[in-house]
This record gives sequence, C-alpha cells and structure tokens, in this order.
Amino acid sequence: MSKALLTAEATLEVPFQDIDAMQVAWHGNYLRYFETARTTLLRSIDYDYPQMLASNYLWPIIEAHLRFIKPLRYGQRIQVSAELVEWENRMKIDYTILDAGSGDRHTKGYTIQCALDMRTQELQLVSPGALRDRLKAYL
Amino acid sequence: MSKALLTAEATLEVPFQDIDAMQVAWHGNYLRYFETARTTLLRSIDYDYPQMLASNYLWPIIEAHLRFIKPLRYGQRIQVSAELVEWENRMKIDYTILDAGSGDRHTKGYTIQCALDMRTQELQLVSPGALRDRLKAYL
Amino acid sequence: MSKALLTAEATLEVPFQDIDAMQVAWHGNYLRYFETARTTLLRSIDYDYPQMLASNYLWPIIEAHLRFIKPLRYGQRIQVSAELVEWENRMKIDYTILDAGSGDRHTKGYTIQCALDMRTQELQLVSPGALRDRLKAYL
Amino acid sequence: MSKALLTAEATLEVPFQDIDAMQVAWHGNYLRYFETARTTLLRSIDYDYPQMLASNYLWPIIEAHLRFIKPLRYGQRIQVSAELVEWENRMKIDYTILDAGSGDRHTKGYTIQCALDMRTQELQLVSPGALRDRLKAYL
Repeated sequence: MSKALLTAEATLEVPFQDIDAMQVAWHGNYLRYFETARTTLLRSIDYDYPQMLASNYLWPIIEAHLRFIKPLRYGQRIQVSAELVEWENRMKIDYTILDAGSGDRHTKGYTIQCALDMRTQELQLVSPGALRDRLKAYL
Repeated sequence: MSKALLTAEATLEVPFQDIDAMQVAWHGNYLRYFETARTTLLRSIDYDYPQMLASNYLWPIIEAHLRFIKPLRYGQRIQVSAELVEWENRMKIDYTILDAGSGDRHTKGYTIQCALDMRTQELQLVSPGALRDRLKAYL
Repeated sequence: MSKALLTAEATLEVPFQDIDAMQVAWHGNYLRYFETARTTLLRSIDYDYPQMLASNYLWPIIEAHLRFIKPLRYGQRIQVSAELVEWENRMKIDYTILDAGSGDRHTKGYTIQCALDMRTQELQLVSPGALRDRLKAYL
Repeated sequence: MSKALLTAEATLEVPFQDIDAMQVAWHGNYLRYFETARTTLLRSIDYDYPQMLASNYLWPIIEAHLRFIKPLRYGQRIQVSAELVEWENRMKIDYTILDAGSGDRHTKGYTIQCALDMRTQELQLVSPGALRDRLKAYL
C-alpha cells in the first residue's frame, strides 16, 4: 500500500557513456535517472524548474539516498518511477528503477528538497502555497 | 572521537562544468568528489581499482547517502575527507566536504561497498583476505 | 544533395543537469547528444557496441568537431540527426541538432572512428568486412 | 615556434568515473580536461568567469575540435596545456594533452569563443576592451 500522493514514470535506456570499466553503470549516473522521473512528476503538477523560478522559490536537494540492488548494463531499458511521499514541510520523493522488460528491481532511493525563498535566501520550514495549491486536487 | 580505522583527504576545486542553472554545484557531481577522496584512501593501503582486479574481487557500491548542508559555488576550494569506518564484512566510508579556507562544513555522506568474487560473481558476506591483510597494520 | 549512405535520428530533451551557470547547455554535453543519434544509426545496421565486440573490432573515436550555432536551453526538445558519410577506410558521421518544433539549426558536427583490431591492437587503414558486409544493402 | 600569446598548464589525473567500457577515457570527458587548462590560462590574466560577468561579456564556445592520438587510461597523470593563439576578434585556444611522465602526446584540440554582450545579447565581431586591456602586457 503506497502512501504516495502522486506518482510518475520515465522509461530510459542506459547509454554507453554511463558504463564504467566494470561494464556497469557508474553509480553517480543514477541521480540523472532519478532526475528524469522527478521532472516528469513535477511537470504533472506544473511545477518544474521554470515555474519554481516564477514562484520565487528554488527547491535545492538537501538529501539523497541510493541503494543499488542489481547493476545496470549497457543498452538496458529501465523504468524509473518517482513517488511524492512528503509535501507539507518539504518534498520527499521515492524512486524505484526496474528493468522495463522483466520488471526486476535494480535500484531504490529517495531525494529530499526544501523550499528556498529567492528573496531572503532562507530555507522554509513549511512548504509554500506555490506547492500546496498545486497539490490540492490530489489531497 | 572518530571510529575511523583510516582517513584520507583530497583538495579539489569546483569546476565550471559542475555548476547548474541555480549557480551551485549540481547534486549528482558530489559523488565524483567523494570518489576522489575514496581513491586517495584506497591507494594508501595499495588497494585501488587495479589491485582489486588483481585480487579477483570487485567492490561495487551498494549504497550511497548524501546530505547537502551548504551549497558549493564556482571555483570554491574544498577539502574532501574519507574515513573507513567499517571493513569486516563490507567497506563503509564516511565523507565530509569542508570549505578549504574557512573550514565550514558543506556536505556529509557515506558509501557502502561489498566484495564481489569475479570468478563466481557472488557478493561476499565477509571481506576477503585481500582487504583484511592490507588493514592489519592499522588494527 | 546529401552524400550520406545512411541516416538516423533521435529526439531528446535537454535535461536540467546539462544546463550551466550561463543558463545554456554546457558545450561538453553535446557529445552525449551526438552519441545517442550515432547509436541509433549503428543499431539500424546491427553494429552497435556489443556487435563490434563480437566482430573483434572496437571503433574508438579519433576525431570530433562541434560548431555551436545557437545555444540550447533547459527542457528544449531537439532532433539530432546522424549521417554516415564515409565508411571505406573509417566511419565519418555528420551530426545536426535542430529544435524539434521550429526546425531551427542549433549545432553541427562530426566524429571520425577507425577500426581497432582487438587481437593485435592495431588501427586498420581499411574498414573490416564486419562493417562493409553490413553496408552492402545500402550501396 | 609557437604563435601563442599566452600559455598555461594544468596537471590532472584521469579519474575512474571517466573510464568507459573499453577501459579508456570516454571521448566527451576531454572537454573537461581542456576546460581546466583554459581556466588556468584565463585566471592568469584575471579574466575567469566571474570577471567576464563583471565586464558584461560572456564568452560562449562556438567551435571545438578534438583529435585523439593515443587513448588515456585509468589513473594516468596528464599535462594539459592551453595556448591563446587568436584574440583580436575572438579567442582561439589550442590544447595539447601529454602523459605527465613520458611526455607522449595523446590529444590535440582547440576551442573558439566569441564575446557576447550581456546587455544586447549580440555576438561581437571584435574582442571588447575587457579582453584587449588584459592582454596589453603580453603584446
């Protein structure tokens, strides 16, 4: 039973450039894969980077976690899901990477973002209206 | 009081290419910074990637965590420290990124690696002799 | 009038991570975009990286050229085309990046690759049969 | 006999993350190596990115060329030199990558940058005083 308010998915292919000397995707590249799914999620509520700027809030990532269960290989098609699981005081998004064909689970992780008021440069302890208003339809 | 068996440090500068549209280092680049300090640590016990290959074990990263306390800016000089805090069954390395001038703390994190036997392709539940022998001098 | 033997196209979107402090895609990222279209081209003749390995030839890039006509912005949808324009002694591929909507031309470039015999580690002055056989249908 | 007005050098080591499945540095990473040497060059005349901003000119790269003579391997120490060879109408910088030990030549290349007036967003056909004044001492 998921506690996610919103979910989104992106299907990607692991490019040659991401493969390291051990013939698997270098671990730092997974944050790119997460970002692709997070972008899809945030666009679904019309709150991608340009809309954040327009709202006078940036949302820097303050924490990230990755658990690598099975390695990814060159050319592998993957399905990256992003689930919004916290939104009241900050955005916490959970990620899962599955093989797009077999459904095998390869990676889990999360990121946490906090609103930063662009005028005061202060991190906010409560998510601003710019986010909460966009989520009303889902509550 | 640190529980680290071994520590190493690397001094780096944040390059232009790592800076994103918000004028700070993009969060995925920090795993590169951690890697530089981890390489320094592993070389200090003669167990960098070529020596891992020669020992018939790879050490894939199975978990990574990052906590972003203060953003990094273009051209900032940073000191990245790596501390080996677990080694018996796996390698856990803690990282801290400080401003090289002020000593301000910007980032904390860790990575966990497990030995993978290249012949059987099986993850090991106990660190192999190839690592333990190299650590004897520090125990 | 194109002299291309084969052409392929890939449609991409410029991700946040590729945008630099000047709010445009950092110039080094374009070689990723070229690579995506080149992969599509090489797969169309069943000669992607795994098939190269199986043929005992690697095809390292020995030259690359990029001309940046108009900058790319965050979230821009682009169409990257790859055209095989030399194949007898080496592979030369020409690239063009257009805005996927307006068709405006943003970037031009090329890469040159040479066959490297994996057994002798020698660069070949004539493209091996593994490539020429795959191109017969197009000659 | 070099026609360079200014030269600068940076010594780097090829990190694990840059190595691809063929056990050599992926070709797109070389533009990072060039950038490190270019930064050193531009700092020597006090015209790095922050000073460009202050001068109201950006200097986007409009052309780049790379010739890969010998591959780079993991951990290899390299010396990257940057030479300013054109400056009157645009900046053209030539690069050479040598093995830091043997002096073997691995890579050659160049980049061309043009001044962009931040107020009008127009590319300049003549280099602005902000650059020419800084070069006077070398003419």
